[in-house]
Amino acid sequence: MTIETLNIKYFTGNDIPKHYIEDEFLGKSEGAHAVFVPKNHEEVVSAVNYANEHDLNIIARGSGTGLSAATFPNLNTIILDMTAMNRIIDLNPKTMTLTVEPGVELQTIQEYVEKHHFFYPPDPGSKNSSIGGNIATNAGGMRALKYGVTRDYVRALTVVLANGETLELGSENVKSSSGYDLKHLFIGSEGTLGITTQIKLKLIPLPQYSESLILAFDDLHTASTNVNKIIKAGLSPSALEFFERDMLQMSMDETKIPFVTDKGQAFLLVTIDGTSTEFIQEEVKKLRDVVGKDADDFVELDEIQNRNVWKLRDNLLQAVVNYTEQVTLDETVPVHLIAKLYDYTKELEHEYGVSIMSFGHAGDGNLHTCVLRGDLSQTEWDTKRDDVLTLLYAKIKEYEGLPSAEHGIGLIKKKYFYQMMDPTYIKYLQRVKLAFDPENRLNPGKVFDIE
Amino acid sequence: MTIETLNIKYFTGNDIPKHYIEDEFLGKSEGAHAVFVPKNHEEVVSAVNYANEHDLNIIARGSGTGLSAATFPNLNTIILDMTAMNRIIDLNPKTMTLTVEPGVELQTIQEYVEKHHFFYPPDPGSKNSSIGGNIATNAGGMRALKYGVTRDYVRALTVVLANGETLELGSENVKSSSGYDLKHLFIGSEGTLGITTQIKLKLIPLPQYSESLILAFDDLHTASTNVNKIIKAGLSPSALEFFERDMLQMSMDETKIPFVTDKGQAFLLVTIDGTSTEFIQEEVKKLRDVVGKDADDFVELDEIQNRNVWKLRDNLLQAVVNYTEQVTLDETVPVHLIAKLYDYTKELEHEYGVSIMSFGHAGDGNLHTCVLRGDLSQTEWDTKRDDVLTLLYAKIKEYEGLPSAEHGIGLIKKKYFYQMMDPTYIKYLQRVKLAFDPENRLNPGKVFDIE
Ligand SMILES: Cc1cc2nc3c(=O)[nH]c(=O)nc-3n(C[C@H](O)[C@H](O)[C@H](O)COP(=O)(O)OP(=O)(O)OC[C@H]3O[C@@H](n4cnc5c(N)ncnc54)[C@H](O)[C@@H]3O)c2cc1C
Ligand SMILES: Cc1cc2nc3c(=O)[nH]c(=O)nc-3n(C[C@H](O)[C@H](O)[C@H](O)COP(=O)(O)OP(=O)(O)OC[C@H]3O[C@@H](n4cnc5c(N)ncnc54)[C@H](O)[C@@H]3O)c2cc1C
Repeated sequence: MTIETLNIKYFTGNDIPKHYIEDEFLGKSEGAHAVFVPKNHEEVVSAVNYANEHDLNIIARGSGTGLSAATFPNLNTIILDMTAMNRIIDLNPKTMTLTVEPGVELQTIQEYVEKHHFFYPPDPGSKNSSIGGNIATNAGGMRALKYGVTRDYVRALTVVLANGETLELGSENVKSSSGYDLKHLFIGSEGTLGITTQIKLKLIPLPQYSESLILAFDDLHTASTNVNKIIKAGLSPSALEFFERDMLQMSMDETKIPFVTDKGQAFLLVTIDGTSTEFIQEEVKKLRDVVGKDADDFVELDEIQNRNVWKLRDNLLQAVVNYTEQVTLDETVPVHLIAKLYDYTKELEHEYGVSIMSFGHAGDGNLHTCVLRGDLSQTEWDTKRDDVLTLLYAKIKEYEGLPSAEHGIGLIKKKYFYQMMDPTYIKYLQRVKLAFDPENRLNPGKVFDIE
Repeated sequence: MTIETLNIKYFTGNDIPKHYIEDEFLGKSEGAHAVFVPKNHEEVVSAVNYANEHDLNIIARGSGTGLSAATFPNLNTIILDMTAMNRIIDLNPKTMTLTVEPGVELQTIQEYVEKHHFFYPPDPGSKNSSIGGNIATNAGGMRALKYGVTRDYVRALTVVLANGETLELGSENVKSSSGYDLKHLFIGSEGTLGITTQIKLKLIPLPQYSESLILAFDDLHTASTNVNKIIKAGLSPSALEFFERDMLQMSMDETKIPFVTDKGQAFLLVTIDGTSTEFIQEEVKKLRDVVGKDADDFVELDEIQNRNVWKLRDNLLQAVVNYTEQVTLDETVPVHLIAKLYDYTKELEHEYGVSIMSFGHAGDGNLHTCVLRGDLSQTEWDTKRDDVLTLLYAKIKEYEGLPSAEHGIGLIKKKYFYQMMDPTYIKYLQRVKLAFDPENRLNPGKVFDIE
């Protein structure tokens, strides 16, 4: 089989567009054997068979918004760009499921189902990420507190395995005790177990009413402690995001969007949704009681403010990325420890003289700590960054946290993954990987190594 | 290592109490090598090491309420009775998690957390089943529609593997994209991958208000179609059970508890819960509008009626079991097909002259079809039962359903599991099993075979 006879759109050599073979953090790779752009399941199978025949490795790629260099290739690799498989196949209102190809963008899905009065809750900031990528990273996002993460909305997957076999996982049924749940193994597996070619998502009814609020505080520590108060009070907001004014300012500078208050240095962005306006008013009242005098400002957002604030929030990470070289973590700790972890980042900031900012999905215990280069020299940056990261991950481990809540391990966090996780766990990850991919052909060297 | 030096409570030979080696459906087994009753994790490890040394297989056993003969032993087996590991270790209100040993009974957990104003939603009828058994079968129950099944409330597991190694799965953290989610593999694995020795459960705040209702209909077909209307209307009851008067009568006869209405031949038992009485009243009003004239009766249950009706419901299956020899399925189909499946059972009933009754968790598409022996002779029963089951499972497959929604496959449903499931799926189940248990020592021959 030669590459031409496959009859799949492809690029090789110098024709390969840069974005496939460069990574924001790692820079240029050595390149790839080829990039394929399959249009359907059969073309994916053919490409995988081609890889087997030529002893090549395979990396599936969605929109490329991932933040852990999980699609970083080498010359022994074919990249499968899944974005041309972007059809919405079926919305079944009876079973409340949506069947799609993996290349459909998140935003397309959200808008499509909402037009039909359904709701797909998972909501990462990167609205142009692919649903296939969301599933491969078990993406989290803004509404995980109330609604859960991508994992919780996958009913079924069609995957192509390393040897070209097709495996159907899960079903349209709500419940199952019919054999091991292999579907959950593939969710969050970062392209190392199989290539997803079709997806059945669970939908829920669209909440009819929703209101967002900005709560302003003196500092992120006070904001964090209020997160715990809110959860303890039995309030169940769909979003409970926090961020500092410094980061917000970056997003404001870039988007030219104004913010709703001049007060406060740290903010909680809270969304409450429900089936009646009375319910929401009641929850807002409870929220006001709970935070009490801790808040410097308490702004119920009107429609325009709501749109603006969420644009600013969704753009936070991109603004940091554009502003300076940086490392953004997506660590998680048990939720009551988030304020302590934040305090520790501030200690490190002072001790090492490197700028550290934070935002994140506070309600889930999921912080995004951003370590920024600013005007440090390359050598200073290299050593300080590494020292700070090593200490940070050690502290997260001490708090029984995890290296990745939602972005995945990829290449970037592999070192810290080994530093934090139990060796027995890693041993069985390797065994499971080899049960599906005995030749280690799918995205090898990502997450963990096969010795 | 001899059995005495282990220093674990045990039974051998004729001393083995009958319930360990008999099954309700399969009758007497050939017996077991020994039964151990470990008191802690270390004793489980010792017992597993003993099994390895003597080349024996291992079956973990909870309360023995399982309905698929998943603990049926043979002489080459040691049984680990986990019920002596029944300590509640810790309730952490900050992370809303409960840490327990596997032998704690469901009812004990429910009562304990409710006393502390928390809620553990999974609610199988068998309140004396063990939480370890619930996890190993991914038990469903009455509140799955709104709250999900056991799987959705497991944060972390400690398991002992076939070789005696200990593996920690999951964590106190809410989110994770840190390696494959092996925890989900163990949930529902029916003791074939590891022995659970400690469990961290997720709790939610206790819903403050709750009301149950009985809706009476002419027949189960009408009841089923109303299930779909209720779900479609966006109502979100925590329970949506259905059953026929014939079955109810068995439960009434046994418990001597009266029922709340004489009208109707089939019933929906609906529970609505929430954070305010206004919300519940509104939902009840919507419910009344949705079912409209379809219902012969619509009874809002007071406290005593509520307790009585739920006792009758929880006892349904046990009443059938006590009444006559029977086979009870726990099949599932996509929820809109449940009325059609029910109709098909009635066709079979007429065609084969064998009594078939139904109840189940209608809102999830999970029917319990009970095929009853009544006064059939042994030969008639054997052939008719097998014919009816084969046809039933074929129909369930045609409807893209599954053989087990919540009881598991065990030994009893293995034949139908092979009849219904994709051979490629089964092949990878076998590979995953061997990745954890290369000598096929844990509950061999259950769910599927290793060739
Ligand atoms: C500005 C910004 C904001 C973000 N906000 C969030 C957030 O809030 N929450 C969050 O969780 N993440 C966030 N992310 C991270 C990123 O968007 C997610 O990881 C996303 O799920 C990646 O999707 P993708 O299509 O871009 O995948 P890619 O980056 O192309 O790939 C990511 C991984 O998925 C695998 N993959 C992709 N498609 C398939 C397939 N069809 N089959 C098998 N494997 C496949 C790849 O091999 C790789 O391992 C953000 C990123 C940016 C840039
Ligand atoms: C009257 C009645 C009503 C029922 N109602 C429901 C219902 O509504 N919903 C539902 O889902 N089920 C129901 N069941 C089925 C049964 O109660 C469940 O399957 C329950 O989860 C079994 O728990 P157990 O402790 O009795 O486990 P057992 O019967 O002892 O064992 C069941 C399985 O779990 C494994 N196992 C047990 N403990 C462990 C452990 N520590 N580690 C590893 N594996 C272990 C065993 O090996 C076996 O495979 C009902 C049963 C009865 C008799």
